[in-house]
Order: sequence, then C-alpha cells, then structure tokens
Amino acid sequence: MPDSDALQVGLGRRGYPIHIGRGLIRRRELLAPHIEGRQVLVVTSETVAPHYLEALVDALSPTRPEQVVLKDGEEQKTLDTFRHVVDRLLEAGFSRDCVLIALGGGVVGDIAGFVAGCYQRGVSLIQVPTTLLAQVDSSVGGKTGVNHPLGKNMIGVFHQPVCVIADMDTLATLPLAEHRAGLAEVVKYALIVDLPFFAWLEEHAGALLAREAETLAHAVRRCCEIKAEIVARDERESGTRALLNLGHTFGHAIEAGLGYGRWRHGEAVAAGICAAADLSRRMGRITTAECDRIRALFERLGLPTGIPQEVSPAAMLELMARDKKVERGRLRLILLRSLGAADISTDFDPEALRSTLRECRA
Amino acid sequence: MPDSDALQVGLGRRGYPIHIGRGLIRRRELLAPHIEGRQVLVVTSETVAPHYLEALVDALSPTRPEQVVLKDGEEQKTLDTFRHVVDRLLEAGFSRDCVLIALGGGVVGDIAGFVAGCYQRGVSLIQVPTTLLAQVDSSVGGKTGVNHPLGKNMIGVFHQPVCVIADMDTLATLPLAEHRAGLAEVVKYALIVDLPFFAWLEEHAGALLAREAETLAHAVRRCCEIKAEIVARDERESGTRALLNLGHTFGHAIEAGLGYGRWRHGEAVAAGICAAADLSRRMGRITTAECDRIRALFERLGLPTGIPQEVSPAAMLELMARDKKVERGRLRLILLRSLGAADISTDFDPEALRSTLRECRA
Repeated sequence: MPDSDALQVGLGRRGYPIHIGRGLIRRRELLAPHIEGRQVLVVTSETVAPHYLEALVDALSPTRPEQVVLKDGEEQKTLDTFRHVVDRLLEAGFSRDCVLIALGGGVVGDIAGFVAGCYQRGVSLIQVPTTLLAQVDSSVGGKTGVNHPLGKNMIGVFHQPVCVIADMDTLATLPLAEHRAGLAEVVKYALIVDLPFFAWLEEHAGALLAREAETLAHAVRRCCEIKAEIVARDERESGTRALLNLGHTFGHAIEAGLGYGRWRHGEAVAAGICAAADLSRRMGRITTAECDRIRALFERLGLPTGIPQEVSPAAMLELMARDKKVERGRLRLILLRSLGAADISTDFDPEALRSTLRECRA
Repeated sequence: MPDSDALQVGLGRRGYPIHIGRGLIRRRELLAPHIEGRQVLVVTSETVAPHYLEALVDALSPTRPEQVVLKDGEEQKTLDTFRHVVDRLLEAGFSRDCVLIALGGGVVGDIAGFVAGCYQRGVSLIQVPTTLLAQVDSSVGGKTGVNHPLGKNMIGVFHQPVCVIADMDTLATLPLAEHRAGLAEVVKYALIVDLPFFAWLEEHAGALLAREAETLAHAVRRCCEIKAEIVARDERESGTRALLNLGHTFGHAIEAGLGYGRWRHGEAVAAGICAAADLSRRMGRITTAECDRIRALFERLGLPTGIPQEVSPAAMLELMARDKKVERGRLRLILLRSLGAADISTDFDPEALRSTLRECRA
C-alpha cells in the first residue's frame, strides 16, 4: 500500500487533494504548503487528543498552533460550541489568512468546518479525519454545520477544505462500535452506485471488521472516489448529491426521535437504509432477496437493521417531514432503483411508507 | 424616471437583478417568480415595519409570510439575533426551498442574509433595502454577517440574493442623519473608480441632501453599477473587491473604539475616508488640494471628517490590527492612487499612519 497517493476533488480552483494512507499525520510535507506563515488552530476532541494531537503538532513545527479540545459527542455539535471556537480565534487575534485543522471525527469536522466557513466570511480548513465515518464521508465534500434542538445539521454552510488527510493508522484506536458505524456509510456508497463494490464488501466483511489495513484502505479509497466524483458534479446538492443521503431521512428521524447521542449516526443510517430498501421493495423496485441481502450484510457488520421500538411510526413521519430534502411541502426520499443504483423520489405510495415504518422495526 | 429598469449582477447561474425605481415594493410581479409555492419569512425592524411591511405583505398575497420584527440598531447584529431568526424558521417548519425577504437597512439585510446563508446550508434571499446605505452598498454583493464583541462583521458568509429591490420611495421616511450616512458610501464609489461621478456629486450635493428623487435614483444606480461590476469580477474579495473598503479599516476601528451604535457606520466611513485620503496625501499620492476637496464634500453633506477625540491613536492602531484585510500579520489599507482611483497597499510608512491618526481628528 503506498503511504499516500492523493485523490483529487475536481472543483476547479477550489479543488483539493484527499491523501489516504498510513502515518500521514506525521508527514509535514503534506501540511506545510497550507500553513506556512499562517496562524493555525487545531480543533480536536478529548478522546482524539491524547492519541494524535502531539504527532500532529510535531508535524506542524515550527508553527505553534492554538488548540481547542472539545468534549466528545454529537450533543456538542451546537451553536454554543461554534461560538466558543470563534471566541478563541478572536481572542487569539486570528486574521482571515489563518488555517483551521479539524483533527477528529465527524462532530469535530462539522464544527471546525462551520467555523472556518463563517470566520471572517471564510478561512482555510484542513480535514484530518480520525474515524472511519469521517474518512469516508463527512470530511470530504464541504458540508459543515451544527444541530438545532429541532433538527440535525439545520445550521451550516458548504465550505470545502483545502486538503483532506485520511491516516489509516488513526482507525486502530477507534472503538469497535464506532468502526461498525463507519461501515454503514461504506455500504451506502456501494448501494447507490457500485454493485461490484457491494459484492466486494460482502466478501470482505470479516477483514473490514478485523480492520485489516489494506482492505480498509481500499474501502476508504473507493468511497472517497465515489464521493469526490459526485461532489464535483453537484457541489451544492441540487441533484445527484442527494443520493448520498440514502437512509439518512429515516436515520435522522431515528436519531432525533431517540434523542441525539443515543444511537450513533452510522447505526441510525444502517437502520435507515434497511427502511429505504424495504420501501423500495414494496414499490417493486428491488426483490425481497435483494432486500434480505442488504439486511444480511448489516447484520454481519453488527449494525441495526430496523427502526427502534421507542420511535413510533407517527413520530417518524413527523420527524421526517423536517428533512432538508422536503420541497414545497413534499417529502423526497432516496430509494433504490436496483442494487447499486438509487434515485430521488417523491412519488412513493404514502401507504407503503406507513407500512415500512410499522413493519421495519428492530 | 422608469419605475424599474433592472441592473444585472453577472455571476453566471447565480447572477441576479437589481431593480431600482419608485413604488417597487408594491409591484408583485417583481416578487412572484421568486416566491410562488414557497414558505416566506419577512425579516424587518421596528422602525421600518410600520411604514412598509403592510405594502410588502399585500404584494406577496396570496402567500402569507411569517414575520420577524427586530429591534433597531447595530447592537442587534449579533449571533443571538441570528439564533432567534433560525428558531423562528424551525418552529414554523420552514424547508430548504423557503425564501427570506430582508426589508430594512443594513442590519436587517446582514442578519437575514446570514440566516439565509446558513439555514439548511443556504436558502433563497430577497433584499429589499430601505435605507440609502443598504441600497447602494450592503444589499448588493452577498456579504452577510453579524458582529462579535471583538470585531465588526467577524462572523458571516458570502451569500448572494436572488433579487434586490431598491424602492426610492422608502428613502422618504429615512431620518436625515441616516440619509447623510448613506451618502458617505456614495462618495466612496466615486473616489475609488469614477472621478466624473465625484464631480457630479459635488455639483448635486444640495439635491442629494434634499432627496430629489431623480438625482437620488441616478446616484443609487451608478453605485450599484460600480458594485455589480466589481462583485462580478471578484465575488469573494481576493482582489479588486477590497477597494470597496476604502475608509472602512479606519471606520470600523472608530465604531469599535466608540462602542457600536455611537456613530453610524456611514459617519465612521466618512471620517475613515478622510483619514485614508490624509495618509494618501502624506505618501504623495494625492495633493493637498484634492484631499481638501474630499473633506469639503463630506462637510457639505454634514458628515464627520476626522477621528473622534475619544479614540486615541494607540486605540485606533490596535483596533485596526484586527481588520479582516490583515494578512500574515501585515495591515493592508485601501489608499487613493489619485482622485477616482484606489489600490490596496501594505507599503505605507508606519510613521505616516501614526501622523494621520494623530492629526486627522474631529
């Protein structure tokens, strides 16, 4: 496996590399071009800091970065935390040519990215994702934001990083449950555009769970390739990019219904994908066997495959109505057209949706 | 004067019209294409609402907009107000295809614009500026944001409106001091790119102060033309657009030094332009006579021409060091190259700057 072999997100002048490999956090030549002579703030979390902050700070030398260490958890992803990071930047006198580095999982990346998008109307951002979920999904593509009590990611901006550094070594310390949750998003990519990748995942489920480095790196690379291509075509989600939300409308409703932090995002997405697959099956878009195949893969990966009992079908419907994809009052869902292909749909039968919400339960 | 004769801001697919004329708030055909079938929120202020809200709501019919009426004043331009507007959108169940309409001055436009830029990562915005300052400056070009105790406009995004409607009739109810403050920005446009326009302003200062409608409309149109051209060339202020900040680094420091709200933004800009002109003169870029000519025009318009005594040269220097144009620790200032031409400069003599701060006083 090459240490680093950069993918490119093709967004013209705003394009950027994604480095995927081992030991990348220590590679100062990856960081240097983006930070020389600038003020740098590293945003990280209490869990990640003890493992990787020192190595990153060493690689930044002689630049001595400011540091903000956030508490862990989705419940930190608030406007108050955003304000806290902005306060730090202003107290330290950071100018518009400063750089923020997000070292951590999706929560750290989303908050640091939102701050970078808004501080003095936009400053540079480097994403150093340390969870599988962040490596395959949230660190690439420029979506940033925080939650609101009435909905997830309701406040945010599109703000592309100048560079993404996905160091496979950081996945070693990830709790198993977090690792599994990240695999839910990996399966998502396969389902929306790449049937052979889905079959590869079925074949390598064991190695992925065991975190075999070559296998993981291949999966991360394939996901980033798919995402980079979709983002280059539709940066602001006016079309194709919405496909990346397969399972997410159901998933966000599950997270909100349980209260943020009860289920991991990836766990809710796995259950949400199973619900989307179930609805696709009811509409005759995929077969029962295909639907079972999806569920079986999630089961092997140790992920939930149904909506939790505590969130009633009525609650799900209400929460789903707040989804960002709602347009002129109509709910739009990402559904499977077949295994390895998806589309955005408003013409689903509401009765079929109600059946899915009733029957696709944990 | 034609009722409406739209200018166009050339930003490709994100381009938009600026309608300038009389009675435009009542012209439903200007609004209809942007709001049909969508949820609409009008953000306005306590001063503006009694004058124009009803007319705007009538023009939106049959759409019945939600309304947020903000308290008046620069001190409202905070993250708390931002949150308040976002709360309203979520409580009302607004989806991503909603539209925000900013009816008011710069504060209303900046807050509503920042919310529109961040709500669900960006929704449509219509600017209906009702002050001269907002019509010639803040409503065009997509700059949005709020203040922080440590600096003005420190938190914000670039978010272009879908349409700007500058109704000359709304200027009739503007307090005279607000009107004068708006004229400071008008003079700014002339100074940075258009010497004949500067001479025209000298000639028509009386008619502008008397709010002669044709004369005002001509001035607004010329300013919007200049701004539209600059924004089209440099949307995110990586170069030319910075020229629009002539006098603003000094001006923001004056506002912060006095405490926000003590001086109007335009008043601080007038004094700031006089300081920038004084520094340009000390560097031999413009003559003493040209410098006097600028000061004389501001005096005729009833605007301040020097830094207030309460803000010491040392305080000015410290506050100016927080300017967004600071790059790698170096202050950059917009200076006049001649009357009607400006550039961005880092090579000014620090001693000359100190002399300006000491001597260019009210």
